[in-house]
Amino acid sequence: MEALNFAKGHGTLNDFVLVVDPDDRRPLDADTVRWLCDRRAGIGGDGLLRAVRANLVPEWTGDADLWFMDYRNADGSVAEMCGNGLRVFVRHLLETGLVTDPGQVPIATRAGLRTAWPQADGSIRIDVGRVTVGDVTSRVSVDSRAYQGRQVDVGNPHAVVVLDDPTELAELDLGRQPAFDAEVYPAGVNIEFIVPTGAHDLQMRVHERGVGETMSCGTGVVAAAAAHLAQLGRRTGEVQVTVPGGRLQVQLTQERGYLSGPAVVVAHGSVVLPG
Amino acid sequence: MEALNFAKGHGTLNDFVLVVDPDDRRPLDADTVRWLCDRRAGIGGDGLLRAVRANLVPEWTGDADLWFMDYRNADGSVAEMCGNGLRVFVRHLLETGLVTDPGQVPIATRAGLRTAWPQADGSIRIDVGRVTVGDVTSRVSVDSRAYQGRQVDVGNPHAVVVLDDPTELAELDLGRQPAFDAEVYPAGVNIEFIVPTGAHDLQMRVHERGVGETMSCGTGVVAAAAAHLAQLGRRTGEVQVTVPGGRLQVQLTQERGYLSGPAVVVAHGSVVLPG
Repeated sequence: MEALNFAKGHGTLNDFVLVVDPDDRRPLDADTVRWLCDRRAGIGGDGLLRAVRANLVPEWTGDADLWFMDYRNADGSVAEMCGNGLRVFVRHLLETGLVTDPGQVPIATRAGLRTAWPQADGSIRIDVGRVTVGDVTSRVSVDSRAYQGRQVDVGNPHAVVVLDDPTELAELDLGRQPAFDAEVYPAGVNIEFIVPTGAHDLQMRVHERGVGETMSCGTGVVAAAAAHLAQLGRRTGEVQVTVPGGRLQVQLTQERGYLSGPAVVVAHGSVVLPG
Repeated sequence: MEALNFAKGHGTLNDFVLVVDPDDRRPLDADTVRWLCDRRAGIGGDGLLRAVRANLVPEWTGDADLWFMDYRNADGSVAEMCGNGLRVFVRHLLETGLVTDPGQVPIATRAGLRTAWPQADGSIRIDVGRVTVGDVTSRVSVDSRAYQGRQVDVGNPHAVVVLDDPTELAELDLGRQPAFDAEVYPAGVNIEFIVPTGAHDLQMRVHERGVGETMSCGTGVVAAAAAHLAQLGRRTGEVQVTVPGGRLQVQLTQERGYLSGPAVVVAHGSVVLPG
């Protein structure tokens, strides 16, 4: 019986199993990740975040003194980045004393260097990199009703559909993958449905590629804000986005997107791995 | 910030948050139970099992030296008994040394005294009390298809539908509550669909009252076995039941039902309660 220390936390109800393994002594195979993320058999989470010293990660060629965020999906697959996950990861490093300078926290990820800035109000602001709003709109269909979705790239592909009516947003059946144009999105797409509730505010629901409807999606929130600003003829600005799991703030500059939101670690413990 | 020690375990994927509070110092209100059982915001479980010394429980009038199983549903409501929960509860008491005689473990529950017998094969056998198979059958409908369900009482009400075809069982849509006769079941009903795969074996899926389809339901497994035996003209016997979450054994005597199955505690930790 092998025991593993873990923590559990979430950002706007996007939740994660956290494991700290500075010396990369216990790489986790896909089966183990799946079991840890299993909500009934194991601990439960949308994904797993493992902290390893960056100098031990062959694929990382940047600053060797950073922490590397080994992010895995609940199905065990390797993933590049997760906006909600990065905030929770940084929160855990701060609370456990693995990061001691709370002013600015650089993190090594598979998507490259990312920076987090813990805020005085308890939220964490992160750099989500370049955001590109396309001119392309394409058809997105839910239950045979067709919409136009605007293409946005936040390192991963998004189609953002603007609705007028909060009731329509609330009643959308996102239990199944909405239909989309596979020629525009050959690798699949995250689909956001938004209702602007003001120049700087919108409500959003999201269907994540390969996952289903989720309570929150960090890159989706940024894509939604960018599409909303584009609708107003703007490339930069600040937008507050309300998702089922909570509220997040987006800032878009000419160069990059920034996402601020809550991140909390709720439990610490030891789990007995099977087998 | 208040911290609470917890464990997490499951029996055939029916999972629970476990809390030990011998002196009843920290009663848990419905909001706290809901939060602890929330799979994203808190720890996650189908229910919560709290161990309190029976002499501190006013409603318990039996042996004062026992452990009382304060069982709560995930929605925070108080519940009487849970066959899978009782096994996990006993496993936790044994592993933490709160019970030292592993031969026979009596537990105080809201449904009365229950006894558990840890088995050499690692399973735990429990007494589930009196089982009554009624002569009444009534209509159960799934997606406009009608079946006859036999009434069984295991301290709570069940309607057991016997199907012939494993494919039909696998394809049933239990995403919604099947329709049932409210005159026969005024307080609602747990509905089991079974396919006999031998004289002593059956497969089962279950829709739990107020919960939805679950991976396993202890009393439902016993009800299914009793209905199956009744179908064969028998009141007593042994039946192995395969549910989506695993495999359980039922023994029915003239007087009582007994349920044997796995029970495992996978994690121990400390959780920071909100507020």
